[in-house]
Amino acid sequence: MKTYLDCIPCFLSQTLRAGRLASQDDMLIKQLLDQIANQIENIPMEKTPAEMGEIIYRKIREVSGVYDPYKSIKSQSIQEAKLLLPTLKAILEKSENRLQVAIRIAIAGNVIDFGMSKKFSLTEDVYRILVQEFALFDFEAFQAHLEKANTILYIGDNAGESVFDKLLIEEMGKKTYYAVREIPVINDVIVADAIDSGLQEVAEIISSGSQAPGTILNRCSPDFVGLFHQADLIISKGQGNYEGLSDEKRTVFFLLKAKCPVIAKDLNVKENDIVLKGINI
Amino acid sequence: MKTYLDCIPCFLSQTLRAGRLASQDDMLIKQLLDQIANQIENIPMEKTPAEMGEIIYRKIREVSGVYDPYKSIKSQSIQEAKLLLPTLKAILEKSENRLQVAIRIAIAGNVIDFGMSKKFSLTEDVYRILVQEFALFDFEAFQAHLEKANTILYIGDNAGESVFDKLLIEEMGKKTYYAVREIPVINDVIVADAIDSGLQEVAEIISSGSQAPGTILNRCSPDFVGLFHQADLIISKGQGNYEGLSDEKRTVFFLLKAKCPVIAKDLNVKENDIVLKGINI
Repeated sequence: MKTYLDCIPCFLSQTLRAGRLASQDDMLIKQLLDQIANQIENIPMEKTPAEMGEIIYRKIREVSGVYDPYKSIKSQSIQEAKLLLPTLKAILEKSENRLQVAIRIAIAGNVIDFGMSKKFSLTEDVYRILVQEFALFDFEAFQAHLEKANTILYIGDNAGESVFDKLLIEEMGKKTYYAVREIPVINDVIVADAIDSGLQEVAEIISSGSQAPGTILNRCSPDFVGLFHQADLIISKGQGNYEGLSDEKRTVFFLLKAKCPVIAKDLNVKENDIVLKGINI
Repeated sequence: MKTYLDCIPCFLSQTLRAGRLASQDDMLIKQLLDQIANQIENIPMEKTPAEMGEIIYRKIREVSGVYDPYKSIKSQSIQEAKLLLPTLKAILEKSENRLQVAIRIAIAGNVIDFGMSKKFSLTEDVYRILVQEFALFDFEAFQAHLEKANTILYIGDNAGESVFDKLLIEEMGKKTYYAVREIPVINDVIVADAIDSGLQEVAEIISSGSQAPGTILNRCSPDFVGLFHQADLIISKGQGNYEGLSDEKRTVFFLLKAKCPVIAKDLNVKENDIVLKGINI
């Protein structure tokens, strides 16, 4: 997905939010805003917003000296998600179509997103998404690809959401690689968060090499890119991964909630819609 | 009021909204965003946001060649407000405290604001504000100043709101100067809009000389500054005028709805609160 004009003010909103987590010094945050603002004329609009995200969060680390501003928030999100797990497992056990419910639960986890200005309530949103109509639902194609697959590359998005990803991976019951970011960026899941979420029990946790809040293949490690081309099935969670992968030429299934108007427009759905969308299927 | 960090992303949102009204050429709008973004490091935070507003809307005029992007929107707002007028007049006629009701109606008009990203419904909001509690209500001081006043300087804000201002000016029944912006900026009232609203029937319409979406005395005409110091009572409508005048040393009464979190914080009220606040009273 390319960068839309609406992304530009949002880059500064993100800088401000993350800057405030990293520092209480308004002068320092103003410097951050200045430096990001000065980058705007260099943004190639044909690149994805996640690439600008990488620049923003690198600058925040450099200027503030704080490596992981969202560390405690991520830990809280994981604990909060774990508290919901027994109830969600019970719902899954009783459901007629377990795979569909596990997909819903995994998408519900996608509401945990501190890159957005909107507030969310995990518990409320999870139960809403369990009964929400899908705006795009390529379930049959997904199921067909899943049945044939021996290996799955599952690209994680946010910490906390990762706890619910575990449920879907367990349900699918295939050899799964769970890809995380190389270093902390917003509240995206990194290796430590994936372990905290218990994903090592159901998948092989790998880094994609990405330092962006998304997956842009030419910014990922060669090992990850190899896996991307070889895995039988790719599941991509969330907006940032969609931004980077939506124009790729191989089959990818995107599971996400469209939380921003730009992503919703690109997917041709409405804001807050939930989506299971396959490309090149 | 000084510029807050939260104003910075908002400057770019405003640029995008106004740019889209002035042009359908995304490349041109991107140029506008680039140029405003490059100004951000030069913003002195001790200046008011309205000063940056002046720079933004001047740049939009220059780059797009469109002098008044909000012209038709302003005209529509005035017509819409006029349609509500008979009902509001009837409410005023039946009210026990006519001055208080006229103040409420004038504040209700302040919901018409295309400088904000929030959507509004004039009719719904007007009726809500007619019964809403004031968060700050220096009514007694206002009434005392009004009784003693021979001349009023009434500083208008948005076109459309101006129609309701007329009602309050009529109710006060004093010699009134109705100050408007020198040139079009957002949907702020200019001389033509004031005439379209019928203000010449109840007041002397004057330009403040301001090219900013607010009133910053050192950016106003000497005539206006003279009047500002000589008028017996000053009524300042809306956020932009508050931004510019909140630190002045003479008595000013501000009538507004706090539509943005920054203004609400500066006033120590909540977003969407309504306010009649006097300074130096």
